[in-house]
Amino acid sequence: MTDMCVNDKVDLIEVGPRDGFQNIKKFIPTDIKIDIIKKIIASGVKEIELTSFVHPKAIPQMADAADVVKAVLADAEDDNGFIALIPNKKGAENALKAGIRTVSCVISVSESHNRANVSRTREESKKELKDLIKSYPELNVRLDLATTFGCSIEGAISEDEVMRMAAEGLEMGVCELVLCDTIGIADPKQVCRISRRVLDMAGDIPVALHLHDTRGIGTANVLAGYQAGITRFEASIGGLGGCPFAPGAAGNTAMEDLLNMFDSMGVKTGIDFGDYYEAIEIVKSNIKEDLTGHMGHLSKELCLTGIASEAV
Amino acid sequence: MTDMCVNDKVDLIEVGPRDGFQNIKKFIPTDIKIDIIKKIIASGVKEIELTSFVHPKAIPQMADAADVVKAVLADAEDDNGFIALIPNKKGAENALKAGIRTVSCVISVSESHNRANVSRTREESKKELKDLIKSYPELNVRLDLATTFGCSIEGAISEDEVMRMAAEGLEMGVCELVLCDTIGIADPKQVCRISRRVLDMAGDIPVALHLHDTRGIGTANVLAGYQAGITRFEASIGGLGGCPFAPGAAGNTAMEDLLNMFDSMGVKTGIDFGDYYEAIEIVKSNIKEDLTGHMGHLSKELCLTGIASEAV
Repeated sequence: MTDMCVNDKVDLIEVGPRDGFQNIKKFIPTDIKIDIIKKIIASGVKEIELTSFVHPKAIPQMADAADVVKAVLADAEDDNGFIALIPNKKGAENALKAGIRTVSCVISVSESHNRANVSRTREESKKELKDLIKSYPELNVRLDLATTFGCSIEGAISEDEVMRMAAEGLEMGVCELVLCDTIGIADPKQVCRISRRVLDMAGDIPVALHLHDTRGIGTANVLAGYQAGITRFEASIGGLGGCPFAPGAAGNTAMEDLLNMFDSMGVKTGIDFGDYYEAIEIVKSNIKEDLTGHMGHLSKELCLTGIASEAV
Repeated sequence: MTDMCVNDKVDLIEVGPRDGFQNIKKFIPTDIKIDIIKKIIASGVKEIELTSFVHPKAIPQMADAADVVKAVLADAEDDNGFIALIPNKKGAENALKAGIRTVSCVISVSESHNRANVSRTREESKKELKDLIKSYPELNVRLDLATTFGCSIEGAISEDEVMRMAAEGLEMGVCELVLCDTIGIADPKQVCRISRRVLDMAGDIPVALHLHDTRGIGTANVLAGYQAGITRFEASIGGLGGCPFAPGAAGNTAMEDLLNMFDSMGVKTGIDFGDYYEAIEIVKSNIKEDLTGHMGHLSKELCLTGIASEAV
């Protein structure tokens, strides 16, 4: 039998401004991005992936990375909790210049996916990461292990291979491991099993889950990870994001849905739902009306009280 | 620590043709309904709520109840597992005449919701149910306890009141208790707690969960119920259904998403995903293209293999 609530608080890490926005084709004006990010921060979100320092030709949506970071930092009380994704040392350089102290680097557990994603072998990616960590000791480097739960090219992924790559990351000195369900194929039993193994190995180094909702069980997988002892979850506002191999499929687990789930369970997040809802409203008016996240389809009042003033 | 898989099989009960279809405004041609139902049965679904024997003025979509039942029974090997919802003795009469042996009757745990839903007090509804069970001993009567997890008018619902009404149902001789999250407000902790209490009390009488996905945690709530020991879950094809107080909100948990979740966990359902997918295709072409269920947004191949032939 289960104890449903194994920890009384969790850290929810917002990745919408990076993983979400980069999936939006039309360029989102920089001031809209900044507005949304500031509302998210004002709601109590302590960690947020702000952008990606990639070549603008690769991802035009992230061309304003430095401007976004600078604007957010100008208003912030401190620079903890701001994260940027970087693909290489050039990205590290630019991120540092903009004021970023924590970065995420991605390597796929699947060899084929890594080649398809970054045109490199995993060995090359690992070598580059090792070099990057040595070259920029002032940076906290998180390692995103893409395709941890399955790959759209290779299919099933060996859990021992996940463990090996996690161990290599820890040895290199990463500040956090992020287990990513890149294609949204994880199931609760698997999430529980892998999470426990990695938590056991990681010791004091934090482990986060980044779970997509492609198959409609994103929140079930979050619950399974939580029960396995994970307390750090990435999620995106509105569920923004997507699945390059399945147009129309849902993206990340939606922050607002996780927020509601943990709030209802009495698990503290430090985030105020009502305030966060204001950020959702900007997303709906400016980026995407029909969100895959569910709470944004309800009125703010209904979200907060469960009571409908009109129909039953 | 959790044992993720507490039972090696579950029963998934299809309610799309009743709870799903009745939320579709435009009348669905009877032969389309029958086609979908037959495909669902052919996929291995053993229990299915076929329709509702209500007055056609109340729910015009269910006006063909007798025709649907007769067509399905004509082809079926036996009549076990076919369920119809009925609001009163007149419904019981008509259901029996059409060949139905198992019916669902709904009473809300919330007094206000019961009045709003069926224009009766709970006492009147209970009296009627008792009378109905006595008058039709040949019928198996399931009791749907609406608003078990919360009410859109009263807000929080007393768990002791849920227990009292469940006990009264058992005393009357219902063949099953169905705990319904009518407004989709349940959370995993609550689902686990209430499920355990009702299971303990019900003994040999089966207990099912009927969970809506209004807040994006339908599958997480199913997982929580499963962990609490529930093995019977209602779900609807495509996630059809809805929420009268929140237009655009998701309806029931989608059968295909539950099917994938349990399949991936190695929990047996007796249902073939590929065959079930054919029923989804008929729903998409004839009733609703943009389903809230997630698996129907992916190609059948991708659902089954996780491998995408095109992009990564």
